[in-house]
Amino acid sequence: MPRYKLIVEYDGAPFVGWQRQENGPSVQAAIEDAARALSGQTVVAHAAGRTDAGVHALAMPVHIDLCRDYPAETVRDALNHHLRPAPVAILSAQTAAPDFHARFCARARHYLYRIVNRRAPLTLDAGRAWRVPGPLDADAMNAAARRLVGRHDFSTFRAAQCQSASPVKTLSALWVEREGEEISVYARAPSFLHHQVRSMVGALVEAGLGRWTPDDVEAALKARDRRACAPVAPAHGLYFLRADYDETSA
Amino acid sequence: MPRYKLIVEYDGAPFVGWQRQENGPSVQAAIEDAARALSGQTVVAHAAGRTDAGVHALAMPVHIDLCRDYPAETVRDALNHHLRPAPVAILSAQTAAPDFHARFCARARHYLYRIVNRRAPLTLDAGRAWRVPGPLDADAMNAAARRLVGRHDFSTFRAAQCQSASPVKTLSALWVEREGEEISVYARAPSFLHHQVRSMVGALVEAGLGRWTPDDVEAALKARDRRACAPVAPAHGLYFLRADYDETSA
Repeated sequence: MPRYKLIVEYDGAPFVGWQRQENGPSVQAAIEDAARALSGQTVVAHAAGRTDAGVHALAMPVHIDLCRDYPAETVRDALNHHLRPAPVAILSAQTAAPDFHARFCARARHYLYRIVNRRAPLTLDAGRAWRVPGPLDADAMNAAARRLVGRHDFSTFRAAQCQSASPVKTLSALWVEREGEEISVYARAPSFLHHQVRSMVGALVEAGLGRWTPDDVEAALKARDRRACAPVAPAHGLYFLRADYDETSA
Repeated sequence: MPRYKLIVEYDGAPFVGWQRQENGPSVQAAIEDAARALSGQTVVAHAAGRTDAGVHALAMPVHIDLCRDYPAETVRDALNHHLRPAPVAILSAQTAAPDFHARFCARARHYLYRIVNRRAPLTLDAGRAWRVPGPLDADAMNAAARRLVGRHDFSTFRAAQCQSASPVKTLSALWVEREGEEISVYARAPSFLHHQVRSMVGALVEAGLGRWTPDDVEAALKARDRRACAPVAPAHGLYFLRADYDETSA
């Protein structure tokens, strides 16, 4: 059973999320169905991150096993053919070691959250960024972000339905960049809790609007209580950027 | 009759173009209808560039006359309110001199053409860029672009239905930038012929694919014959970027 590592881009808008569910189309089902159309077999697709409904991906690592030894380019092109017209694209495919696992071997995950800071509604970026009308201070957002970096109990920034064994996670990096009206929030960690990035972005926006100080953000973290969380940022601004692997496993 | 200068962003996908037409929704009609909802009067909107069906705008200057002296912020916010859910946004509004004319006072127009140079289909950029699967050489495209800059008879790059009095135009600048798989073609001129940018991009892509040399591009220009034109690039990759005005008229 040759194993293939795929790098996948998708527009999350029409999907109930990564994971196959009864109640609507998922990215996982789209890829598994395309792989079955190629190979005639039932295929299970594993992703580095199981994104929520509406969340996008720019370079999501995924692995699948196929019974036949197809050239990697054939896998890429055939999956893209069968994926149409779903907004899911296989950017690349390569053969992977039998013990490579897109989820369990990932040692870091990168997310981007896109905010457009302006009063006018979005047109070309509708569904692709969160519009925040009030003026945001990116320096204040960065000052608040620094309070969240490190190993902490992130219960405040964790969805009620989170299945993680522990709320303690290491946030490796969290920073904010402004370019014109566009504000990008970058987050990196070995792994995240459910809704963690969107919950943290909600707190950073409170800081950017001047409603929360960096101390308030730190107090929310230390409360270890979901009720201390700011409003969660909407899903459609969030992008799974990429995952890192050890060279031997990738 | 106070005059207002608007800066407008739109997603061209659902429109038959800028200009009001019988056969479908136009950006002009959307803005004029919103202005009538605000003011109760019939309003005519004039734009710096009359974009084709499917062409987008990031900062299109437009002017309108209103009977009442509304604060500029009210004009911006009320138009945005009445424009919903059309993908047209008034980024800013300001009062303008009575002799300001968005079209006739513009001394330069800037366009961007977005190409994504990759094999995989587009997802988030679908309808927002032209996907070219074959490898493009941006240096070759720039070498070809330099042959088109200057004052020339651009009949080769002019649509049959072009209403311009003369095919002679001055192309002030045309250049290509690559960043990863994204290739941006920038064009600037006092004014353009109908389909000129998309026709020139078609020729540059032939050069980028190695099918045309810079000499071939120059020969096509010198032919002054529409039949010498390469396939015209699709509308959905084209963006009206902005227009320049003399300081006194803006």
